[in-house]
Amino acid sequence: MTGVTGDSGGPGPGARTAGEVLADYLHHQSTDFLRGLRLHRESGSDAEGAGEAAWHLRAAARRISATLHTFRPLTDETWADQLLSELGWLSGTLAREHACAARRDRLMAALQRLTSPAPDSEEGESALSAGAARAGALLDRQLTLARTRAHSAALQALGSSRFHAVADSVAVLASEAPPTRAAAEVPAAEALPHLAEQAHRRLTEAVTALPLSRAGHPYNADALAPDPRQDSPWHQVRMLVRLSRYAQEVIAPGHPDPRLTDAGHALERHRDAAEAAAAASAAARTPRIAPATAYALGVLHADQRHEVEAARYAFGRAWLPRARGGGTHG
Amino acid sequence: MTGVTGDSGGPGPGARTAGEVLADYLHHQSTDFLRGLRLHRESGSDAEGAGEAAWHLRAAARRISATLHTFRPLTDETWADQLLSELGWLSGTLAREHACAARRDRLMAALQRLTSPAPDSEEGESALSAGAARAGALLDRQLTLARTRAHSAALQALGSSRFHAVADSVAVLASEAPPTRAAAEVPAAEALPHLAEQAHRRLTEAVTALPLSRAGHPYNADALAPDPRQDSPWHQVRMLVRLSRYAQEVIAPGHPDPRLTDAGHALERHRDAAEAAAAASAAARTPRIAPATAYALGVLHADQRHEVEAARYAFGRAWLPRARGGGTHG
Repeated sequence: MTGVTGDSGGPGPGARTAGEVLADYLHHQSTDFLRGLRLHRESGSDAEGAGEAAWHLRAAARRISATLHTFRPLTDETWADQLLSELGWLSGTLAREHACAARRDRLMAALQRLTSPAPDSEEGESALSAGAARAGALLDRQLTLARTRAHSAALQALGSSRFHAVADSVAVLASEAPPTRAAAEVPAAEALPHLAEQAHRRLTEAVTALPLSRAGHPYNADALAPDPRQDSPWHQVRMLVRLSRYAQEVIAPGHPDPRLTDAGHALERHRDAAEAAAAASAAARTPRIAPATAYALGVLHADQRHEVEAARYAFGRAWLPRARGGGTHG
Repeated sequence: MTGVTGDSGGPGPGARTAGEVLADYLHHQSTDFLRGLRLHRESGSDAEGAGEAAWHLRAAARRISATLHTFRPLTDETWADQLLSELGWLSGTLAREHACAARRDRLMAALQRLTSPAPDSEEGESALSAGAARAGALLDRQLTLARTRAHSAALQALGSSRFHAVADSVAVLASEAPPTRAAAEVPAAEALPHLAEQAHRRLTEAVTALPLSRAGHPYNADALAPDPRQDSPWHQVRMLVRLSRYAQEVIAPGHPDPRLTDAGHALERHRDAAEAAAAASAAARTPRIAPATAYALGVLHADQRHEVEAARYAFGRAWLPRARGGGTHG
């Protein structure tokens, strides 16, 4: 927490008010957002450029949202809640296309890994290779269609008056200070770390509810258990990790907590694998598919659910070593 | 190695010749074999009794075989090789019925675990539950048929003149010393530990060739890789663990090495899971099955291949802690 508390010495942000630090962070993020928007308009039919632009838009929108969420008591709450809601809509719309593309890539890579030709293939493997090609084609078709739909929806969203209103709100943040309350007039070191620690406490409390001890035993086979609600607490923690990570960006810029970074990566992998497993499962319900295709989709589903389990194990490894030593937070 | 080397003090087996210690061990095992044979004849239509009898027969046959194998240089080698070959035939024949039953139980338990009803089932799980019941019925039918065939084959073997010849050879061991060579006239402590250590060295050399470092990283997904030959070195080590374990029984009765016991259990689980995965894969090639059935068999196959991977991890954990500290063997 060097940035705000001024531990790093020098004329750091420690001398500034909470409102000034927030305005500074939001200024940077909204500038990034507007740059992403410009890139997107310039990308035209360049899919890669459009993808990169959307990435910038999403990254900035996520950070602005997280900041409004964590430091809400310092801001005009009506304004913050309104912008939060609209940024949530925008992020969701923009994220879908990327998610479909990433899910397709993940499943194709998994099929590749499960079926790449072995020197002397035995009979035991042929049930998979027979169906894997057709399963791949089916998933490719379904996820490409979903991606195309998500792309159209995103384009439509970016041309809507609703989007222009969000973009205008963000553009204001690029030049003006956000509407704050009197509480934001205090020195940054007095107000910001406290709220960041509250966010971190919500995270550590949610982690406490996770079956971490169980997840720390490899090959526990929990992720394949038929409990459809088992992923939710992990998804919840993923969002809280993100909030805590961005709060750290505000109060200690340039000092990312590697534990939060690793934990976040593990839980993103958890989400990606869970969604890929669901896509394989959904594809298996396509009418009139061949048994060999369904078999390959079953293998793929189980493979991705084991990836879910592996991600939980990785989260535990990222989280626990420092928790054992006593963290600096909550 | 207290028994033979006499470290335990007292009038232990250290004072006896190698031939006497071998004769003693083989006497015990052949008595167990004959008891198993009597139990089997008395069991009639009592399937549980017959199963228990077969278990005794197999356990004794395995130990006699292992002893003839490891301590072969002390015995009449023509006699040992002949008996080894016949015991191998008998063990294989008797093991098949048990293996079919165990495989069926393992797969039914896995299906149960993968599909036991969750309170509020989501759409994402229904593809599995729809097919799991039919997959279970299919596997049950196929493995019960295989078991019935194995049972008939075992009964036929037990009534054959070939079996009576083996039983006669074993019966001789229950009352007479085995045909040994002059080398067996030396004190047990001079000849037996040396041969047991050779067996152990063959084991440690085979373990060195295993990808243990890789297997020690949980969730490496190796077991689902399409290399049909990947299991063989592990199966080979399983047999060498068994030889080493039984050699320990000869030279240090009542002092089982927990490391060998744990390593052996892990590799038995490895073999069972690999065979169960192959059975699920084979069932998926049954003509005219429903896609939902094939999907469930795919999930089951992947689940059992992950069990294979988990067993490799468990083997590494059983094997390495003491290897790191520097073992007493080889």
